[in-house]
Amino acid sequence: MVSNGNGRPTVSVLGAAGFAGALAARLVQSHPYFELGPVTARADAGKRISDLYPQHRVDRVLEELDLDRHAGTDAAIVAYPHGAAAPVVAELRARGVKVVDLSADFRLRDVATYEEWYVKHPHPELIPEAVYGLPELYREQIAGAELVANPGCYPTASILALAPLARAGLIGDLVIDAKSGVSGAGRGPSASTHFVSVDENVNAYKVPRHRHTPEIEQELGALGNPLTLTFTPHLLPLDQGELVSCYVTLSDPSRATEEIEALYHEAYDGERYVELSRTPAGVRAVRETNICRISVHRDDRTGRLIVFGAIDNLWKGTASQALQNLNLMFGFDESEGIG
Amino acid sequence: MVSNGNGRPTVSVLGAAGFAGALAARLVQSHPYFELGPVTARADAGKRISDLYPQHRVDRVLEELDLDRHAGTDAAIVAYPHGAAAPVVAELRARGVKVVDLSADFRLRDVATYEEWYVKHPHPELIPEAVYGLPELYREQIAGAELVANPGCYPTASILALAPLARAGLIGDLVIDAKSGVSGAGRGPSASTHFVSVDENVNAYKVPRHRHTPEIEQELGALGNPLTLTFTPHLLPLDQGELVSCYVTLSDPSRATEEIEALYHEAYDGERYVELSRTPAGVRAVRETNICRISVHRDDRTGRLIVFGAIDNLWKGTASQALQNLNLMFGFDESEGIG
Amino acid sequence: MVSNGNGRPTVSVLGAAGFAGALAARLVQSHPYFELGPVTARADAGKRISDLYPQHRVDRVLEELDLDRHAGTDAAIVAYPHGAAAPVVAELRARGVKVVDLSADFRLRDVATYEEWYVKHPHPELIPEAVYGLPELYREQIAGAELVANPGCYPTASILALAPLARAGLIGDLVIDAKSGVSGAGRGPSASTHFVSVDENVNAYKVPRHRHTPEIEQELGALGNPLTLTFTPHLLPLDQGELVSCYVTLSDPSRATEEIEALYHEAYDGERYVELSRTPAGVRAVRETNICRISVHRDDRTGRLIVFGAIDNLWKGTASQALQNLNLMFGFDESEGIG
Amino acid sequence: MVSNGNGRPTVSVLGAAGFAGALAARLVQSHPYFELGPVTARADAGKRISDLYPQHRVDRVLEELDLDRHAGTDAAIVAYPHGAAAPVVAELRARGVKVVDLSADFRLRDVATYEEWYVKHPHPELIPEAVYGLPELYREQIAGAELVANPGCYPTASILALAPLARAGLIGDLVIDAKSGVSGAGRGPSASTHFVSVDENVNAYKVPRHRHTPEIEQELGALGNPLTLTFTPHLLPLDQGELVSCYVTLSDPSRATEEIEALYHEAYDGERYVELSRTPAGVRAVRETNICRISVHRDDRTGRLIVFGAIDNLWKGTASQALQNLNLMFGFDESEGIG
Repeated sequence: MVSNGNGRPTVSVLGAAGFAGALAARLVQSHPYFELGPVTARADAGKRISDLYPQHRVDRVLEELDLDRHAGTDAAIVAYPHGAAAPVVAELRARGVKVVDLSADFRLRDVATYEEWYVKHPHPELIPEAVYGLPELYREQIAGAELVANPGCYPTASILALAPLARAGLIGDLVIDAKSGVSGAGRGPSASTHFVSVDENVNAYKVPRHRHTPEIEQELGALGNPLTLTFTPHLLPLDQGELVSCYVTLSDPSRATEEIEALYHEAYDGERYVELSRTPAGVRAVRETNICRISVHRDDRTGRLIVFGAIDNLWKGTASQALQNLNLMFGFDESEGIG
Repeated sequence: MVSNGNGRPTVSVLGAAGFAGALAARLVQSHPYFELGPVTARADAGKRISDLYPQHRVDRVLEELDLDRHAGTDAAIVAYPHGAAAPVVAELRARGVKVVDLSADFRLRDVATYEEWYVKHPHPELIPEAVYGLPELYREQIAGAELVANPGCYPTASILALAPLARAGLIGDLVIDAKSGVSGAGRGPSASTHFVSVDENVNAYKVPRHRHTPEIEQELGALGNPLTLTFTPHLLPLDQGELVSCYVTLSDPSRATEEIEALYHEAYDGERYVELSRTPAGVRAVRETNICRISVHRDDRTGRLIVFGAIDNLWKGTASQALQNLNLMFGFDESEGIG
Repeated sequence: MVSNGNGRPTVSVLGAAGFAGALAARLVQSHPYFELGPVTARADAGKRISDLYPQHRVDRVLEELDLDRHAGTDAAIVAYPHGAAAPVVAELRARGVKVVDLSADFRLRDVATYEEWYVKHPHPELIPEAVYGLPELYREQIAGAELVANPGCYPTASILALAPLARAGLIGDLVIDAKSGVSGAGRGPSASTHFVSVDENVNAYKVPRHRHTPEIEQELGALGNPLTLTFTPHLLPLDQGELVSCYVTLSDPSRATEEIEALYHEAYDGERYVELSRTPAGVRAVRETNICRISVHRDDRTGRLIVFGAIDNLWKGTASQALQNLNLMFGFDESEGIG
Repeated sequence: MVSNGNGRPTVSVLGAAGFAGALAARLVQSHPYFELGPVTARADAGKRISDLYPQHRVDRVLEELDLDRHAGTDAAIVAYPHGAAAPVVAELRARGVKVVDLSADFRLRDVATYEEWYVKHPHPELIPEAVYGLPELYREQIAGAELVANPGCYPTASILALAPLARAGLIGDLVIDAKSGVSGAGRGPSASTHFVSVDENVNAYKVPRHRHTPEIEQELGALGNPLTLTFTPHLLPLDQGELVSCYVTLSDPSRATEEIEALYHEAYDGERYVELSRTPAGVRAVRETNICRISVHRDDRTGRLIVFGAIDNLWKGTASQALQNLNLMFGFDESEGIG
């Protein structure tokens, strides 16, 4: 049983050897109200996070997961691959641990869709209780949730960039051309993440079926009309950072640009972690922040809208958003510990 | 008067201090049949190319342009900014010098379109004699031309990527999301080309009106139906290389994928400098080559085609294509001196 | 007169358009006890810092310096080029403003040395009152100082890496091979900071006389014996980060490695911003921190010591160290606002 | 039996899936006089080189090594790890195949030294017949050799940078600080070659004992006096390119700088692949060439010489130098096929 005598909620990080999990452990460790509980890993059990990631300064040994010893925390951040997360989440939930799950396992509300794009779902019975963890859309539901499905990085940027249009029913046709730094591909060494493969290169991957597609469709569809979109990610020679370039054919081309801009201001002027920019949003402006930076442009020749959304894929795209969700789940100000 | 006693055609490079001009000088210098004539520059006159670009090993002093001394070559490559090129081209043509012009001045056939996107045209009377220098489309015309307008880098990749579809009248709606290395921005130091601005960054520029748009529209329109497209370039943290990701809504969605692939093979199987790839084309595969690498993908969920075109913006996008054109203009095999 | 009614000391940043000044403004703005006073610039007066550096989120307009209006703060960080800083510092000191000067103007205690390496010194009379702002060496003096000369980035890393050896009189012969990211070259666009010049490149610059040499000699000499060293900086394709690789021929080769390691632990185990690493120190571990990471290695074949020191040149190398100094000058904990 | 009816010597590449082997295969394929024989690999047998490295355009299937079928070529380039190369080399030599071995197995003339730094030597009896393949030092011996030990990349740059000093007996004390791009670490994916580990980073590795140290000592010692040096390599965020910064304490400090420069001109003015530069040599100037670029600088304050040597580690550092050696072994001009 993991507890602490000072009344601060403890948060474990399961899968803390990966890029996202390790950053989550750092953010929990330096959080003013949470206490970092056990940190676990599989292949890297026995190593110190501070040896794998000296920049995080989390001087803790990674342990193999042992639910009897590790499931006594108030909350857990689960950073497992899809399919592998659900069984652990189920065990944690059975013991009353609040969970923010970084995998895709509880993001899609429709089991059939999940199983079409991923694998057979190990615990479909938990899907109904999961809340999609995009605070700018579901703040209240997250505050009352025990299980939060943290969004994918591409969906985070895409949904925030397009939500005002979706709500207004304005998205007629949609192409999302996404660009990501290499940390989005995870820590596992491979031919495609080798420095020499990425450096001085750019190309698309998982064309034409990337698994974040149905997640974006689900959330934009829930805000307005159902839609089917084209989503194409590209790998870029940079570390952290993700840009989505969204090409929107308006369902109502007569809408004035000012009207559209007003939709964005209405949606986001009160949001701490969304910035509206007049110049095309770039990823350098959001590096190591929980911020999504958005710019909206009208192509008068075609009538099309071009919307850019930039995030740090490891922060707002994953780990700091997990903390934002945890803050809400525990009644703290959502900005505690994430700037 | 510049000449040589060995019967080899001499080629001057005007504007040889820039990235494209200096590379053109290197390619002419090492060409088996051409002889490098005068190399000129404005601000850098008096410097050696080998000091500015040691990698090119062109040990020649840049001179200020003096048409009386420099216009006696058989041909000239003019690497001037748009607007500044046309007057020099006119002088050279008046003296019988064959010209490959790297600027935009003679690419657009319609003066009004040029003047809408650029400046007042200094020599519209020369436009009719200019041939658009994309050998894969206009090989015969180039062979007989005295003035060739070398295509822009984005148009080169975009037109080659889409020509088979345009010819078949299949392009319904079109979005081109382009990504370029920094050499495309030219050699002039500026805030936007500073290493610190580009590194770990990606964002779009010249949204929503980049000047290569009408050039792409002109050429694709000439092959099939007129079209208006959205073109959005992004700056990436790499040196040379350009990728266009083209999203095509087919005018006839019933066409089978095999039929579309057949169009590409028919167009390009005999082309030395076009490669068809099954995996998404990336820029590393074409670095420092005259090759355009293309891949075609069908998004079955939306029916859309996704076509990628990758080039080296300084080679096939500019300087080696200029040599390919010169080879044709002088009756040499178009591959001489460019690999 | 700039003041505030809440009793928090105001700090102006003069020269806040550069990389270091802008970061200093950000750190002052987010500091728990300081208040950001005027921010000034020359060429960029009238622009907002948030437009030049959106990542800093300092929404303030840069003003042209007007000492009558701007010299009423409690302190100033002066981020001017050498030679230009001293006259402004003199004015500020005459009005009682505490100054942290980021230039080289008050780092060298010997006027002749300054004038040999820089220019004629505009205000030599101020040199005696200046304290060299390396808190790990001069913490007490800084606490009592009104004028602090913030160290150069290379000297910060080099002196911290070698101080324990210098104090023990162990440095016989010394070569420092330094590697720096491009932000160290400043924000001014130039051929050498153009992305295309730096990318896929590495070479040395200012060989064999870089101006940080006498500063390192002064400080190491003050701790032990006078020395003359070779210092060679290299420019690397990265943004922030600086590594010094120090090759030390020991004056007493019989000293055991354990003894030497003990010197480092004695010097730094109590220092919050110095980390000792067993593996070779790298810059990624200190990015955007005030930390200097050091590792010490013995080459048994030659007897030589190899000491690595890694910092972020804009943070510990400049701006966060300026805040560390300001904290000491105002009696705050030296870590306030810098992590 | 592999042969060809056109009288061109066939060259196999064993281990052609690695960076160096694949490049060697490309260079052999495009060579005017050699014919590319079998290309082999272990883990990647069955794949096409053109799928692994589309940029090389070697459309050949990698086979598992079968000496009965593959040892009938006129020559072989062996690109195996140290220890694994020697047995294959022995088999090839037994069948009369000329060999250029890229491993370390035959570089060190002293078996004990090899075994101290590497492993037990599998075929020490072959060492005496091997020639060290640095053409600028051993051109004649290479021309008559049947087994050439291709130098390591660091030794290539270091020895060329220092040979004129070694021959003159001028090297008193020596520190070599080396910087390499990531391709030098090989194609195997690992934590240290992951893009995210390398990007925005620089640090040293294999401190203080890198295996290229005795190779440099052997060759410089053979030219002049025996010496023991410090060699420290660093990994940099670039692909291809290697810079050695050599710090030389002269054994005779009274030698004039002009005299030293004369030594370099005497050694290299006639060498096609060595360039002397007045400004500090950088790696971009030699990318994808067989050239070593060298600059020599005198630090008047310490009397020390600073010599920079820049190469492309995959070209002059490995594959193109292998071709240079093969050209000599077969009586061709040493520049055939390598520019």
